[in-house]
Amino acid sequence: MSRRRRIYEGKAKILYEGPEPGTLIQHFKDDATAFNAKKHSVIDGKGVLNNRISEHIFTNLNDMGIPTHFIRRLNMREQLIREVEIIPLEVVVRNVAAGSLAKRLGLEEGTQLPRSIIEFYYKNDELNDPLVTEEHITAFGWATPQELDDIMALAVRVNDFLAGLFLGVGIRLVDFKIECGRLWENDMMRVVVADEISPDSCRLWDLKTNEKMDKDRFRRDLGGLLEAYQEVAQRLGILPEQDRPPVTGPTLVQ
Amino acid sequence: MSRRRRIYEGKAKILYEGPEPGTLIQHFKDDATAFNAKKHSVIDGKGVLNNRISEHIFTNLNDMGIPTHFIRRLNMREQLIREVEIIPLEVVVRNVAAGSLAKRLGLEEGTQLPRSIIEFYYKNDELNDPLVTEEHITAFGWATPQELDDIMALAVRVNDFLAGLFLGVGIRLVDFKIECGRLWENDMMRVVVADEISPDSCRLWDLKTNEKMDKDRFRRDLGGLLEAYQEVAQRLGILPEQDRPPVTGPTLVQ
Repeated sequence: MSRRRRIYEGKAKILYEGPEPGTLIQHFKDDATAFNAKKHSVIDGKGVLNNRISEHIFTNLNDMGIPTHFIRRLNMREQLIREVEIIPLEVVVRNVAAGSLAKRLGLEEGTQLPRSIIEFYYKNDELNDPLVTEEHITAFGWATPQELDDIMALAVRVNDFLAGLFLGVGIRLVDFKIECGRLWENDMMRVVVADEISPDSCRLWDLKTNEKMDKDRFRRDLGGLLEAYQEVAQRLGILPEQDRPPVTGPTLVQ
Repeated sequence: MSRRRRIYEGKAKILYEGPEPGTLIQHFKDDATAFNAKKHSVIDGKGVLNNRISEHIFTNLNDMGIPTHFIRRLNMREQLIREVEIIPLEVVVRNVAAGSLAKRLGLEEGTQLPRSIIEFYYKNDELNDPLVTEEHITAFGWATPQELDDIMALAVRVNDFLAGLFLGVGIRLVDFKIECGRLWENDMMRVVVADEISPDSCRLWDLKTNEKMDKDRFRRDLGGLLEAYQEVAQRLGILPEQDRPPVTGPTLVQ
């Protein structure tokens, strides 16, 4: 691998300078973190799987006219993306009560919500990514009302597509998180889906058994994370033999 | 006092059946609570002051065409109100960062906000009144989108009026909370301001000294709560000699 400039390193990914202006290389690490990185493991092969699953989803979103930062996968761990200005919000779409929503509003996990709910969390590790409302977002200028409308429209479309995609392979889309970014093209700005969409950022339950097939296996010490992610990839039909990572136990780093 | 049916008892007020259908009597107690009633005192005379201050504000709101549940004050501790169906939201309007907003978003207390921010908290003691978004409120049917629009319009008008009223007497309106209710008249429903508006439900800082003149004196053990409430009433010109309660120290109940 040639030397290249590292633009940003996050908990599970690294961004490198891309081959031409306006592009970046998004590298998927094997690190798994939860609870604002208080919990951390390295799970060999997770990055490879997330790269493939996210490629599959973003390619389909692009094809459907849902704008994203994704250009193409480069290799097992990397993809070429457009450089965007990340909007500092985690955009969460929920179809079924789970996680923090269940806890905050006193709902039993697994309760179907009356309708899909979109939530925004302010991306700030020091503050533990607090839930914020449109009032906070627009007052502090994290996004404009027009951008929020665009983000919500994107979130609804992604939810519709993902819910269908996973339902088709026997998986219930409980909730998921996306990030959005501002992309400039020909002096025009538009909001696009950025980051990744993978079992790291979705809650996916087997439709028949309710078995968790997502990062909650790590958060809740259920084990079998890599096997679950492989199962998701296999059901989606996107795991060719040569890319299938060896199954080994998680390595506890911290 | 004649026997009458008690409809509801809260932390600081009691609602009794009113003299005619569709009315209630709102009785102001001397109890002071904070942190979801984990902290509790009785402060002799607080109820009398809040009854007078709230009467003054609600009378002015009614006169300005901002609909409220208030009809008239009956005596030192009681007022006659219209019976409404309370919408289970605490509607908070903030002009200056303080309290939970300052903590959640990492802002220094006293920072002027870029613009006024309206927040909604779900009234539920078991859940500690969690912050909720319009998505949660409309998905769970706590209020309709139309009702939320009405509530926000009321909140903005009340903020404009209160900010002016207090500024005129040398007090900075940092934030305040209102509750709203559904009032039916001639088969028509409209949303009105309910509950109370008093130093129990506002943050009020002296314009020159930044001294707190509100319930934070109790929450933060600063002492002098009754004197501060009296000062607010006196500045507003609404504390006739005969209603001025004797100044005594707080009685610690719990």
